[in-house]
Amino acid sequence: MESVPFIVETEARGTYDITERVRDVVARSGVRAGLATVFIHHTSASLIICENADPGVRRDLEAFAARLVPDGDALFEHDDEGPDDMPAHIRMALTRTSETIPIVSGELQLGTWQGIFLFEHRRASHTRHIELTLIGE
Amino acid sequence: MESVPFIVETEARGTYDITERVRDVVARSGVRAGLATVFIHHTSASLIICENADPGVRRDLEAFAARLVPDGDALFEHDDEGPDDMPAHIRMALTRTSETIPIVSGELQLGTWQGIFLFEHRRASHTRHIELTLIGE
Amino acid sequence: MESVPFIVETEARGTYDITERVRDVVARSGVRAGLATVFIHHTSASLIICENADPGVRRDLEAFAARLVPDGDALFEHDDEGPDDMPAHIRMALTRTSETIPIVSGELQLGTWQGIFLFEHRRASHTRHIELTLIGE
Repeated sequence: MESVPFIVETEARGTYDITERVRDVVARSGVRAGLATVFIHHTSASLIICENADPGVRRDLEAFAARLVPDGDALFEHDDEGPDDMPAHIRMALTRTSETIPIVSGELQLGTWQGIFLFEHRRASHTRHIELTLIGE
Repeated sequence: MESVPFIVETEARGTYDITERVRDVVARSGVRAGLATVFIHHTSASLIICENADPGVRRDLEAFAARLVPDGDALFEHDDEGPDDMPAHIRMALTRTSETIPIVSGELQLGTWQGIFLFEHRRASHTRHIELTLIGE
Repeated sequence: MESVPFIVETEARGTYDITERVRDVVARSGVRAGLATVFIHHTSASLIICENADPGVRRDLEAFAARLVPDGDALFEHDDEGPDDMPAHIRMALTRTSETIPIVSGELQLGTWQGIFLFEHRRASHTRHIELTLIGE
């Protein structure tokens, strides 16, 4: 059992690739067979596993999210922090807070096209906290 | 490894805070470093991690879900249990059945604004079963 | 700790029941108390836990997904593999890549109406890889 906190500084709404940082922790841990759980400590940013080759995929995902959950929608009563406040909470509820990934032969076993991304849902920059927990042998 | 079932009696569609119940099981378990997995045994209720301070956030989330997946939508063939039957299955598929949260220094390590909620998607009251599994040392 | 890869051959867009295959691995593993994590190695197919009795539920879920994320939507720039390429990535982001299920008394502890399904989001047939990881005692 190993638990490693790390921080991602986001600059604006969008996706931030954390795959290599997770891979590095797994490689250095000595765990050969097990599970890596990634957990994000926020309610206006989330995690996704997404196609890692064409940045257009993540631009399209952002465009879709922005259309599905419009900033400033009159439906929302909660807007203390602005028009992107409540949309951020909904976009987070529709994606993931935790993701659990196998470790096989000492390596994080993602598919060829899978990357792990932090999805920042607020327009402004934020300091985001993630906890990576490894379990195995 | 410890596994603790618990029951939530829901009164109507909406969110039910289970954070303190999960925290209590973790605190009493003696697990210092590990993971807590929450699993809900239903297909018309789900789990969310959501902002815990302003109940307006959860009202807005419910309003969004109701607009996204309208009760009685003519698209749906499955309505054996009424107009909220199929929407409940879809709302559940779009949120979470399991969530895995780190345990650090003997405490459930949620972010400041994170709460764990059962999301009841049916209009009527239900008895809902959750299993909390702790792993660690 | 046991890790078992398996393959699902999909024929077209839709859901594929993998519940019995997961149950079989758990039953043969000898794990009495623990967790089973199902992980899918793709970004255009995903996992859902869904109602297992009426196939109409899964037809309705597919109809909803097709309406929510239309194939060939002009919003999308990424269409290298056709009109269902980007919708597949979005449908996957809105459902699940990993799911963690309790094992109690040597059995996968799903609710009565819960089944585990691979959700193929592409129109063509694909060979899909899943890893099932068991942890426990």
